[in-house]
Amino acid sequence: MCTMTTAPHPADQWPGERPEAARRLLSAAVDSFAQRGFHATTTRDIATQAGMSPAALYIHYSSKAALLAEISRSGHAATLALVEQAVAGTEGGPREQMRRLVEDFTAWHARGHTVGRIVNYELRALPEEDFAVVAELRRRIEDTVRLVIEAGVADGSFTATDIRTTARAITGLGIDVARWYNDRSTETPEQLGQRYGELVLRMLGAG
Amino acid sequence: MCTMTTAPHPADQWPGERPEAARRLLSAAVDSFAQRGFHATTTRDIATQAGMSPAALYIHYSSKAALLAEISRSGHAATLALVEQAVAGTEGGPREQMRRLVEDFTAWHARGHTVGRIVNYELRALPEEDFAVVAELRRRIEDTVRLVIEAGVADGSFTATDIRTTARAITGLGIDVARWYNDRSTETPEQLGQRYGELVLRMLGAG
Repeated sequence: MCTMTTAPHPADQWPGERPEAARRLLSAAVDSFAQRGFHATTTRDIATQAGMSPAALYIHYSSKAALLAEISRSGHAATLALVEQAVAGTEGGPREQMRRLVEDFTAWHARGHTVGRIVNYELRALPEEDFAVVAELRRRIEDTVRLVIEAGVADGSFTATDIRTTARAITGLGIDVARWYNDRSTETPEQLGQRYGELVLRMLGAG
Repeated sequence: MCTMTTAPHPADQWPGERPEAARRLLSAAVDSFAQRGFHATTTRDIATQAGMSPAALYIHYSSKAALLAEISRSGHAATLALVEQAVAGTEGGPREQMRRLVEDFTAWHARGHTVGRIVNYELRALPEEDFAVVAELRRRIEDTVRLVIEAGVADGSFTATDIRTTARAITGLGIDVARWYNDRSTETPEQLGQRYGELVLRMLGAG
């Protein structure tokens, strides 16, 4: 088997109010899903990885699907916050907003590639209600990208023939980084972000 | 659970000399891996899906890993042939070669999204020797893209600041289509290919 490189789980990976044991379980679930895939992982695997008993796991999460749902929701909420902040916190109009958005979005998927893979490639394993929550977050991420393109087309910074497809290509480019990026990659997440930012501006006729 | 849309498996999906039962097993393995992931699929699941006994499966493949290896090798060989053909079979220089390459590569990943997901997202489950074979095919796909970019930079059709990263972005854009494309997508594989071809030419300063 090829070894799976597991990104470290920094203290701020699971923001919000939650007990330390819940954070430990989320990180253990990420490692287990990354190693074996969601379907082949048992709640016992996750509990063992977290150094806890299965009974202790059930105090915090009702099932492995509940853990996947929380990982997916949390990951998508973090990327939505990141793209919204890139737009709200950047002066200089659509060109600079888009550059910052792609830089941050790309670097996030490089840095958090293990979580990024689970969040993007295990979506189909989510229970329907949880899928709906994540689908809504994804829609808002893509809408944010679309609105920056529209603003840039309106003020003459960008040219785009199909705004919806362009928005999807931009998010897809960043998400794809989680598929191949690993700890042996020669570019840092920030360097990769800068290069992808430049490529996307070219896509928009603003390189 | 969300329903997994399974692409049809046309007769020419498994080219080369092989018995009809082997083709049936490969298609059954694709469906099983797509539904449950590689790790949670048993050889019995695959045999059942193919309407065969586990003993009959072992006549053709020694393990589920051997099936995954053959699916991955075959998928990568098909995309390598496709990109090489796009270059060799297109007149008009790097610009038209790149357009055709991206159109075909993108349409392939839309049309074969189920196989595309397995081929790209279950790579880490491959035994080491099989991984090496697939890694070599991937290297050749990316080299083909890189050589077209270099030819275009040399003859003044393209501008590119980092050719290796640009080549990776171009293949990544096409591969990512397998993640999200499904039978309800409004664009046909060919329409999507055309739009992505245009976006990539813009990335290369040749839009």
